[in-house]
Amino acid sequence: MPDWNSYLTEHQDRFLAELVEFLRIPSISAISTHANDVLRAAEWVANRLTAAGMEHVAILPTGGHPVVYADWLHAPGKPTVLIYGHFDVQPVDPLDLWTHPPFEPHIENDRIYARGASDDKGNMLIPILAVEALLRSNGALPVNVKFFLEGQEEIGSPQIPAFLQQERERFACDLVLSADGGQWSEDQPLILVGLRGGCGLQIDVRAAKMDLHSGMYGGVVQNPIHALVQILDSMRSDDGMITIPGFYDQVRPLTPEDRARIAAIPFDEEKLKETLGVPALFGEAGFTPREREWVRPTLEVNGIWGGFQQEGIKTVLPAEAHAKITCRLVPDQDPQVILDLLQAHIKRHTPPGVTVTVTPLAFQAYPYLIPEDDPGNVAVREVLVEMYGREPYYVRSGGSIPVCTLFQRQLGAYTSNFAFGLDDERVHSPDEFFRLSSFRKGQIAYCKLLERLGQ
Amino acid sequence: MPDWNSYLTEHQDRFLAELVEFLRIPSISAISTHANDVLRAAEWVANRLTAAGMEHVAILPTGGHPVVYADWLHAPGKPTVLIYGHFDVQPVDPLDLWTHPPFEPHIENDRIYARGASDDKGNMLIPILAVEALLRSNGALPVNVKFFLEGQEEIGSPQIPAFLQQERERFACDLVLSADGGQWSEDQPLILVGLRGGCGLQIDVRAAKMDLHSGMYGGVVQNPIHALVQILDSMRSDDGMITIPGFYDQVRPLTPEDRARIAAIPFDEEKLKETLGVPALFGEAGFTPREREWVRPTLEVNGIWGGFQQEGIKTVLPAEAHAKITCRLVPDQDPQVILDLLQAHIKRHTPPGVTVTVTPLAFQAYPYLIPEDDPGNVAVREVLVEMYGREPYYVRSGGSIPVCTLFQRQLGAYTSNFAFGLDDERVHSPDEFFRLSSFRKGQIAYCKLLERLGQ
Repeated sequence: MPDWNSYLTEHQDRFLAELVEFLRIPSISAISTHANDVLRAAEWVANRLTAAGMEHVAILPTGGHPVVYADWLHAPGKPTVLIYGHFDVQPVDPLDLWTHPPFEPHIENDRIYARGASDDKGNMLIPILAVEALLRSNGALPVNVKFFLEGQEEIGSPQIPAFLQQERERFACDLVLSADGGQWSEDQPLILVGLRGGCGLQIDVRAAKMDLHSGMYGGVVQNPIHALVQILDSMRSDDGMITIPGFYDQVRPLTPEDRARIAAIPFDEEKLKETLGVPALFGEAGFTPREREWVRPTLEVNGIWGGFQQEGIKTVLPAEAHAKITCRLVPDQDPQVILDLLQAHIKRHTPPGVTVTVTPLAFQAYPYLIPEDDPGNVAVREVLVEMYGREPYYVRSGGSIPVCTLFQRQLGAYTSNFAFGLDDERVHSPDEFFRLSSFRKGQIAYCKLLERLGQ
Repeated sequence: MPDWNSYLTEHQDRFLAELVEFLRIPSISAISTHANDVLRAAEWVANRLTAAGMEHVAILPTGGHPVVYADWLHAPGKPTVLIYGHFDVQPVDPLDLWTHPPFEPHIENDRIYARGASDDKGNMLIPILAVEALLRSNGALPVNVKFFLEGQEEIGSPQIPAFLQQERERFACDLVLSADGGQWSEDQPLILVGLRGGCGLQIDVRAAKMDLHSGMYGGVVQNPIHALVQILDSMRSDDGMITIPGFYDQVRPLTPEDRARIAAIPFDEEKLKETLGVPALFGEAGFTPREREWVRPTLEVNGIWGGFQQEGIKTVLPAEAHAKITCRLVPDQDPQVILDLLQAHIKRHTPPGVTVTVTPLAFQAYPYLIPEDDPGNVAVREVLVEMYGREPYYVRSGGSIPVCTLFQRQLGAYTSNFAFGLDDERVHSPDEFFRLSSFRKGQIAYCKLLERLGQ
């Protein structure tokens, strides 16, 4: 057993205590009153990197939530590996659906429950612990390592593009490992070969300048909720097609090979329906659920509000109504092009009697593809086969990791997924959790992968 | 000048102080945590009636918010007049749009600002003060008087039908005067000859049993907001027609005379647009704004909510979405029939992948019509002409006063509007106010009307 392995075993209790401490910080990037908590999380991460033996640790300003940098560059002739993760988390509402407070980590059945446990604090702490184990036990790392840990992933990394352009030299690397992501199941690994991109906007509809009595004015002025409903309903057909003209124009057609590769990966519709508690799955006609998730674009209303929302009845004709919309995009859709199509569509479908304001949300990501045989993926495959005893599935994800495209464009490096979340861990939902078995397994896997990359 | 008139003048300061005290009670009938405040308002009203010299004052249980009764029956051979009003008020949200706290009355430019100032505390206090003035100055009333003051008008008086049926004898009368309503303008009186009825329901749409990541599940399961939007949008055409099959079947067709009578009453569309701050009026095609308000039925979404509603972005696929809907109904629509049509329509338009629950709201009112030459209206006309120096307009209202139909059905008595609110007083909206000139004028008008009815 390599020394780093016994080091990991010896310090496991401390590592868990540190994860708990990290998860206590409510670093919600979407809510401005939590900006200082995001900064506190950055400081926590910076201190932890220093303690691990990393050098040149720095909290770098971006104009928004910061990026934490660290490096160890004493492996001449070896590749330079950039490790990515994020320390910001999603909002926690609806709070009343949490069994335990989201920022008071609760451990039960070898699982840790807290917002950010799986996405992404638990996963991003893993490579820091692996690097510490390697340095403490071998006094050196098998490759050159840099960390890029950000605080704005959950809001679409708005400042990262400009930031990365300025910091290209600092982050120069041969390949990127993303500690934001996961595996297929506890005993089935995966290699991620594609991600969806995305963009979003908020629609604010205003009618009268004040709330009105629905008896006195119902039928006389436009109801902003009806107007909003009309606009939103015009965006999707009953069978799930997005009806915004041009929306699908840039979508790369699915080849029979693509469809076959996707169909080859097991999918249990009944089990999924049961897990989610839905009477039926639903989505764009003519595609399988997995195709709709991985290789088809979507448009979702993430939130809607207007008028009287409390118990009982209020016969009001409200003054305003609001909605937030995000799209998931696939190759070769361009987020800015889609935003323009959306705005034009909303303008065309705005009924009389209201004023509509459209504000793009801070979420713009290009779709991402990485070759199955990219050198990073080849190394990752070997380690996964060794650890899981079986070949990984080559899959796509319906989610977005905006920086993957950025690293490709700015650093010329592909990003290989190397993270250990599982898709039942309620990321973005109440009662999010992370398996401590994955937490431990991930530390070993990172040590092995860095060694493999050093050969 | 009759004695009652000098009495009113002498005690005007006290009356105003009493109105302020009354308005301080947050008697919001729609919100259960305010039930005790509604009861406190009932007690305040009961004490005030006793102080005015009324007899057999009682707070009568209804199974919901109570009714306050009082009588003075010492005018043998004279008609018995039942005076109606309500001491409950609308909710106050959005609270941040109030210039002054809604339950801390603010007096400025001879106006009193508070929730309920116009609808209906200011108006319903008027006849109590008039009765006091008549009793204190003449020692008697010119007619027999009963009061029916309720605490559930703003939630559609759910318990009143059963209650009134049991209490028919107690409330037996020759005619009803409603102190809930208003006049055309400061110098133009009106006589109300019709009211719209109404009904309502809440729609709860549920998809997955938890909020989901819109990347992982967008395109795979139904979005309850999209489903709700689809259901709501199916209820109305782009030109404002309600598209629920059968919705208009019971609507009494407009005769050319009806339309002429409505068109004869002045209507300033530009001024209304300016007052409301809307770019254009909007409603059912083929009818004037006034026809749409008075004699056409409507369906309004009063509130909608679901998913992420805060600042920023959350790429969530929510578990639930909700909406509250109310309809305004005209002769001869039946609220129960319309509710059934609505429920069937929602069922037909529920898309796959969601579960929809429909719950009727506590708001059911039949449309109401009263003959222009009804004896009560004849007396009201004479007093209005005397006080305003001009003939009243004979108008309808888009609002609903459910008890008008009830009094007709249970007591065989028509209800004449005799109240002094004006339609710019922001009832049901932030900064609701009541003109103190109307408060004083109303007291005199009620004394005159009761004397006229005693002749």
